[in-house]
Amino acid sequence: MSGHSGSGVPAQPGRVAIYGVGLIGGSLALALRQRKVWVSACDTDPATVAYAMQHGIADAISADPAAALQGAELAVLCVPPAAVPGLLSTLAPLLGAEQVLSDTSSIKRRVVEVARTTLGAAWPNFVPAHPVAGTEQSGVGAADAALFHNCQVILTPAPDTARRAVHQVEQLWRAVGAVAVRSMEAARHDALLAAGSHLPHLLAFALVDYLAGRADATEVLRYSAGGFADFTRIAASDPRLWTQICLANRDELLTCIRGFSDRLEALTQILDRADAAALEGFLSQAGQSRQRYVDPR
Amino acid sequence: MSGHSGSGVPAQPGRVAIYGVGLIGGSLALALRQRKVWVSACDTDPATVAYAMQHGIADAISADPAAALQGAELAVLCVPPAAVPGLLSTLAPLLGAEQVLSDTSSIKRRVVEVARTTLGAAWPNFVPAHPVAGTEQSGVGAADAALFHNCQVILTPAPDTARRAVHQVEQLWRAVGAVAVRSMEAARHDALLAAGSHLPHLLAFALVDYLAGRADATEVLRYSAGGFADFTRIAASDPRLWTQICLANRDELLTCIRGFSDRLEALTQILDRADAAALEGFLSQAGQSRQRYVDPR
Repeated sequence: MSGHSGSGVPAQPGRVAIYGVGLIGGSLALALRQRKVWVSACDTDPATVAYAMQHGIADAISADPAAALQGAELAVLCVPPAAVPGLLSTLAPLLGAEQVLSDTSSIKRRVVEVARTTLGAAWPNFVPAHPVAGTEQSGVGAADAALFHNCQVILTPAPDTARRAVHQVEQLWRAVGAVAVRSMEAARHDALLAAGSHLPHLLAFALVDYLAGRADATEVLRYSAGGFADFTRIAASDPRLWTQICLANRDELLTCIRGFSDRLEALTQILDRADAAALEGFLSQAGQSRQRYVDPR
Repeated sequence: MSGHSGSGVPAQPGRVAIYGVGLIGGSLALALRQRKVWVSACDTDPATVAYAMQHGIADAISADPAAALQGAELAVLCVPPAAVPGLLSTLAPLLGAEQVLSDTSSIKRRVVEVARTTLGAAWPNFVPAHPVAGTEQSGVGAADAALFHNCQVILTPAPDTARRAVHQVEQLWRAVGAVAVRSMEAARHDALLAAGSHLPHLLAFALVDYLAGRADATEVLRYSAGGFADFTRIAASDPRLWTQICLANRDELLTCIRGFSDRLEALTQILDRADAAALEGFLSQAGQSRQRYVDPR
């Protein structure tokens, strides 16, 4: 049994069911087990289930969504965006009145729309969440109990989402190391992530595509020093997942691409007219901005 | 005294004069001193001279180009591109018939053009060189004796460059850890570096400029996770140096920006028409290309 805090939410997360044992789901399971939280996991891929069993990723593992839900206080969807609607439909009739549901998708508007129409009576207990963590790696083999240490978590509850449910999900992420858990509207989340995450990913993919398509690609990359490896690390991310993310956040992402392209065009014009003062001004300001945000003193 | 190899070039570099004690010059000086090579350094900035003296960066330090050249077998320019022409003019009448001159500029065509018209009798002993190393840091305070470990060095000698001079410069870089030293035409060097280094730098600067200019910049960057920091590390590079590099390699760089923009536009159109198959194909291919070049198995 876990103790209770004043808010009516236990101080320690109760039993957790995790759907989808990839990088995020596997890491969450490992982190919770370190905290002595009982975890049941569900995955439809036999190889993933076998791996998770062998490596003690969860206390119980099943390919059956209903079995995994048994006795769980909280169910967390850690599947790719495209698998969320189907799983919501499957779980909707299975969820008990007290069971809380959450997800980990890096896009939120579509998830909220689908959940609202799918979950029925369970809707107020659904807390859309996005732990802003991850690497360019994917799959349960990359699972890491420390993945969420110091990460930021964004929740996008609706006005009619149960407060107790929000508290439980916040507590879950704090338990595995989140440094901050904040709530905002789903549309705002998607706009922020389009700019800060989805746009840099697309630029990295486009840069790799351009360089690799050059006849002298091998030579170019031999002499790109660390810049290319750093700049394009995110282009090693799972293409199927990123296809879903980009499509689900298409409008915001297109806005960001246009905004970026305008700035690149301004820089190109400065370069084209060989305006040294303007060029140095542009580069200086960007460097100062980066320092202000990345290494604040 | 140093021994001699079969090629008539000593097995150990002789005395070296280094002009410009910043990140590159300071690191080269430290690395050579570790190898027991005698180093004289020259810098026009009093603070840099004082720092270099205090920290034992070189065996002798002076603000006088002629004094630094005394007794040196090899002089290496480690100043920013814009300072190269003036320094070549200063050194031209001072260089002895046996003294070899080299540089470390990350653009080579302009350096070669200026050197050819400036150096007179010393021209055949000038070996244009570019150690492809560096960080986003700058200045003598960032000097690191290990900076050139495993780095690639490109030499761009002309047909009438003295072979013995080329060997001496090659030996210098191997002595401080270069893993490969290759010769190619200056124009080819500039094309390769425009694509693999200068273009990624400009994209990072443009991305920072775009994101920092958004009204929600603080929020965007809070949730950009590691992607933004990694992707834009190179935007912390010295803006004055990068202004000179971009201008000196302007034509190649503009070609690269156009090539990149075409690929970004192709990706944007795929996204705009929500073509999942084409999008996943684009992202998959980029990921595979990156892996082929960055993590070859």
